Amino acid sequence: MAKRARLKAAILGATGAVGQRFVEHLADHPWFEVVRLSASERSAGKTYREACGWRLPSLLPEALAGQQVHGMDPAEGIDLAFSALSADVAPEVELAWARAGVPVFSNARSYRLEPDVPLVIPEINPDHLNLIPRQKASRGLPDSGFIVTNANCSTTVLAMALAPLERAFGLRKVSVVTLQAISGAGYPGLPSMDILGNVIPFIAGEEEKMEAETRKILGRLLDGAVSPAELVVSAQVNRVPVFDGHSESVSFETIRPARLAEIREVLTSFRGEPQERELPTAPCHPLLLLDGPDRPQPMLDLYREKAMATLIGRLRPCPVLGFKMCLLGHNTIRGAAGGSILNAELAFERGFLPSPR
Amino acid sequence: MAKRARLKAAILGATGAVGQRFVEHLADHPWFEVVRLSASERSAGKTYREACGWRLPSLLPEALAGQQVHGMDPAEGIDLAFSALSADVAPEVELAWARAGVPVFSNARSYRLEPDVPLVIPEINPDHLNLIPRQKASRGLPDSGFIVTNANCSTTVLAMALAPLERAFGLRKVSVVTLQAISGAGYPGLPSMDILGNVIPFIAGEEEKMEAETRKILGRLLDGAVSPAELVVSAQVNRVPVFDGHSESVSFETIRPARLAEIREVLTSFRGEPQERELPTAPCHPLLLLDGPDRPQPMLDLYREKAMATLIGRLRPCPVLGFKMCLLGHNTIRGAAGGSILNAELAFERGFLPSPR
Amino acid sequence: MAKRARLKAAILGATGAVGQRFVEHLADHPWFEVVRLSASERSAGKTYREACGWRLPSLLPEALAGQQVHGMDPAEGIDLAFSALSADVAPEVELAWARAGVPVFSNARSYRLEPDVPLVIPEINPDHLNLIPRQKASRGLPDSGFIVTNANCSTTVLAMALAPLERAFGLRKVSVVTLQAISGAGYPGLPSMDILGNVIPFIAGEEEKMEAETRKILGRLLDGAVSPAELVVSAQVNRVPVFDGHSESVSFETIRPARLAEIREVLTSFRGEPQERELPTAPCHPLLLLDGPDRPQPMLDLYREKAMATLIGRLRPCPVLGFKMCLLGHNTIRGAAGGSILNAELAFERGFLPSPR
Amino acid sequence: MAKRARLKAAILGATGAVGQRFVEHLADHPWFEVVRLSASERSAGKTYREACGWRLPSLLPEALAGQQVHGMDPAEGIDLAFSALSADVAPEVELAWARAGVPVFSNARSYRLEPDVPLVIPEINPDHLNLIPRQKASRGLPDSGFIVTNANCSTTVLAMALAPLERAFGLRKVSVVTLQAISGAGYPGLPSMDILGNVIPFIAGEEEKMEAETRKILGRLLDGAVSPAELVVSAQVNRVPVFDGHSESVSFETIRPARLAEIREVLTSFRGEPQERELPTAPCHPLLLLDGPDRPQPMLDLYREKAMATLIGRLRPCPVLGFKMCLLGHNTIRGAAGGSILNAELAFERGFLPSPR
Repeated sequence: MAKRARLKAAILGATGAVGQRFVEHLADHPWFEVVRLSASERSAGKTYREACGWRLPSLLPEALAGQQVHGMDPAEGIDLAFSALSADVAPEVELAWARAGVPVFSNARSYRLEPDVPLVIPEINPDHLNLIPRQKASRGLPDSGFIVTNANCSTTVLAMALAPLERAFGLRKVSVVTLQAISGAGYPGLPSMDILGNVIPFIAGEEEKMEAETRKILGRLLDGAVSPAELVVSAQVNRVPVFDGHSESVSFETIRPARLAEIREVLTSFRGEPQERELPTAPCHPLLLLDGPDRPQPMLDLYREKAMATLIGRLRPCPVLGFKMCLLGHNTIRGAAGGSILNAELAFERGFLPSPR
Repeated sequence: MAKRARLKAAILGATGAVGQRFVEHLADHPWFEVVRLSASERSAGKTYREACGWRLPSLLPEALAGQQVHGMDPAEGIDLAFSALSADVAPEVELAWARAGVPVFSNARSYRLEPDVPLVIPEINPDHLNLIPRQKASRGLPDSGFIVTNANCSTTVLAMALAPLERAFGLRKVSVVTLQAISGAGYPGLPSMDILGNVIPFIAGEEEKMEAETRKILGRLLDGAVSPAELVVSAQVNRVPVFDGHSESVSFETIRPARLAEIREVLTSFRGEPQERELPTAPCHPLLLLDGPDRPQPMLDLYREKAMATLIGRLRPCPVLGFKMCLLGHNTIRGAAGGSILNAELAFERGFLPSPR
Repeated sequence: MAKRARLKAAILGATGAVGQRFVEHLADHPWFEVVRLSASERSAGKTYREACGWRLPSLLPEALAGQQVHGMDPAEGIDLAFSALSADVAPEVELAWARAGVPVFSNARSYRLEPDVPLVIPEINPDHLNLIPRQKASRGLPDSGFIVTNANCSTTVLAMALAPLERAFGLRKVSVVTLQAISGAGYPGLPSMDILGNVIPFIAGEEEKMEAETRKILGRLLDGAVSPAELVVSAQVNRVPVFDGHSESVSFETIRPARLAEIREVLTSFRGEPQERELPTAPCHPLLLLDGPDRPQPMLDLYREKAMATLIGRLRPCPVLGFKMCLLGHNTIRGAAGGSILNAELAFERGFLPSPR
Repeated sequence: MAKRARLKAAILGATGAVGQRFVEHLADHPWFEVVRLSASERSAGKTYREACGWRLPSLLPEALAGQQVHGMDPAEGIDLAFSALSADVAPEVELAWARAGVPVFSNARSYRLEPDVPLVIPEINPDHLNLIPRQKASRGLPDSGFIVTNANCSTTVLAMALAPLERAFGLRKVSVVTLQAISGAGYPGLPSMDILGNVIPFIAGEEEKMEAETRKILGRLLDGAVSPAELVVSAQVNRVPVFDGHSESVSFETIRPARLAEIREVLTSFRGEPQERELPTAPCHPLLLLDGPDRPQPMLDLYREKAMATLIGRLRPCPVLGFKMCLLGHNTIRGAAGGSILNAELAFERGFLPSPR
């Protein structure tokens, strides 16, 4: 089959933990072709192989291994950029690329809560992409440039499971406690002396992100602005000695009465635009309910549905809020690089990206 | 200082994980002297050193290492017994000892929820020991024999922190998610292939225990019966790859309005009968509030207060239930052997045990 | 492409850790079709899904999930059997199948050192299959039945790397220290309380196996008997908290002088009959030399070459024995199920198995 | 009991992982009193509590918590200094303190192999302190100032076990493979993503240190110079996911013939000057032989003998070198801070330190 022309993609912050996940997942992408790897000045000029210290079990894609790593400045001939930048440099660099006319799909937290920036999970709020014209206007961006963000890893796992419930029954209250993997802290990230055989009941800023981002993602776009969902979210986060995969213990209260069987049905049948459009990176089932009494587990279930779904187990009544359940999702795939790529696929299908040349 | 005469103690189930903790904590006890080690028939006849496969970092106490291990039958000349039996044999064996006139302090779950059996955490409900006369009557026990139970390890950590809040403000709702250590599953217990680098969101029966036991412990003894507290508890449990120490993320709603500072004050100033009576195994502070933004942590804080306190951190508002906090306690010390020993010390001080001969 | 007819295979001990690896690797095998799953009486009568408690991250193959599990007795219509039996039942059961005319490819240790049983690593000693006629004669087996064994997991990793050195230079002395994964102990196997955050410098019988099996595998078949290689092997084994993958630190002394570059060349260019015949399960490179200064590592390198190679790093001079290097191999794939399947493929190509019907 | 006057001690690099071990072990030292805590400019001016981020399970000693942290410059009124400095700053800073007249007991590697600097393990080579006069002469140090080093952590564990063998039988060859704890890499040190569930077969410079330091420590001081022992040491090092405690698998060849029982006797009866002089930090048994077939283990045995001994298990014949055994020692106590303190105690007893004022 003849390969159709692909859009030229840059990866910003290509050498870090999430940057490597971008490289891994874009190496054979049918629509996007990585033509530029950007990183800090320290890496610029080296080959990607030298600069990245590849740390994934999959092999470093040969086609990219020899590419030269560039600095952060916007480049010519790029159709879209993926950003795995850390929050200290993301605001400036991402805006520079958008101003240079490049659509930026960012995993950084910096712009997520800005009123003119879409914070998108394609199964939930694809229409929030329609904030893009407002963003271009408010920030004086050229016609082709904009910034779209995906959610924090823990938020993604949670919001995926909440979305169909919010739609079907309305959600009043959600209480979530996370057990988060070390890869969520990036590389070098968490010192081993802090976490081996330990639990850390704190991750800076994470609880606030989960509470605010969830409301924005589940919110409605009205008159060019997102009106956050009214549900109340309370998050408590923990770091645990697990490599990949965030587990979450969730209780929730619906506004309209719901029976357990209805909730199960609503979760099971959930599909969104990525599934309808059959986007390349989309999971077949964005929510996958597992039957075992002790599932989902990171070691056993994490790579179901290409690591792009939220896995759900132990749905049962909660005497405090009505219902409770266990969630699991892949923090650096669905919760980071994969989520961002899915956003770009959605944007392409909805016409926000240029046509391949 | 001349040692005063000590009560003669037996340990039932002395070779297992909790049994070893009993041995460790009773080896130099000022009031109790271990004179009999009981275990299954498989171990009977061996020396304790041979039978136990000592697995604690502390040294096997020399005085007990050479003692012969006996079977489960009640023996003469025993003033009290500690039970680390598993639930399959505990009901029969413990009752046999009680019928033989021996007070039994049990860590097994079997009798905890029986209406005539005290389920005691000495700082919280020491008066529940007054169920003993009713128990003797209802079960036709001889004058000196009875059974007193301590709570499940996860319940203990939680109930300790809830007790002063229930007393001061009333509690309406509690939502708790646990991150529990592998030693809670006993030995050999959890296979390493199940938990290394993994989270298991399930422990059989644990959530039900936490919900029911907490209400009984916080309940009031009226007319010879415990009226359970009316608070609603919802528990979600997880096993994590931590050796010792159960962490808990807790949200709670008070009945009477409370300010954060008041809650902090109530927790900080909590003292109970073990502290007043200066029981040998009592922690100085049954609740210890830690200030760090990321505490308590098993690796750093578990052995504060002789591993007999509930450590509390991150007390803060919860948008769903009002307040939330992080707890930590030692599951095989305060949550098992140590809790049972403290119960015996309390019973001795309150006159339920014979005098040393 | 039309699938050619496949041989009918049984898996003995199909529910355990290695049994599941057999199921995983035979599910889509081009030559062999699993038609019978055997296990202990406890599992017999259940479906495989119910009986096995599937514990691999890959999905339980649907085609086998619903198959009924049978007991251990030999069955009709089976062309070959793979044995993942434990050593307590393996001798009797495997012999029963061989007597029933079924070629048995066994991962159990029981027959490995028997003089009439081939202990085969196809890249090294494929000709040892020629012990089969002697075995049939000595044990009075019917024409089609025999037993072929693969090596212990640690031995496999080591022998693969030693074989080309023995051939090229002769080996006089080998000193090996292992760091072995927990999956090597089977399931439930090692209690988590024994190994989390710990090292255990002992595995029962393992050092003896490594020393004796290595000599047999590297030995020469002369006049119908294997004359063990004369090298002296000293093994020290350790269990470490790693899930899959045995690491080995090896020193060796050659008989004929060798330069480092020659050794590297001999290792790099090593190919065997599985590579020549392009057996379906064969790795492309049975030995893969990695260049990084800190490789191989289980987390990063274990799945190279379909987890069927020995990975080699840090080849360098040793002041005591001449040379040293670091090895890594997959203990339950190449070191168990995969090794056994490769033996069967070799036997098929060499004409020891019946033709597909 | 009236406390006798103590020497005034400084700790250089007091905030790091080894620095904290110095603080922990010197807090109640009978001879030395910590009066100055030095660290990098970043910490200077803060209280020790603020600056150190205390990461030990023991409580931060109250007496030191509030002390102000100073920069690296030598101070007045200091009788001796302990250095936990990293190798990038150690050479300059330690020499500056020595030039200011302060005896420096250093855990840094920088000066260990200098011909005029004692590299001392008090049980083995206490007389190497007699290099001090030569050092003062060669470096033009004032009368009271000098530098004494202790060995690398892995070297210490090994050399302790080799010393009595070298003395009794002579040692020709030693092959050692280590399994080293993460705390040996300092803090933040090893990223958790590198080591959780993994083995890293490399630690920069460690093998060279073990080989060279062992020879110097076991060497003889003749005419003011250390003549290294002639044994050949080959080291292979691995990092494993263990918190504290280096395990070592060792084979060795003696020069004079030895029987296993003689070797056992020589190891068991080993005592040195710290034991004779009953130095405060000395273990009662510098070598402790454990009988279990699977010992020593970090989790179970590490804190025997105040974590100041080398634990030995599994002494047995080795077909390659004659004998083999398993060692274990505490890398940040005996292998770092504790070893350095013991050196200072030895130096005090031997008259190299001033008298307390």
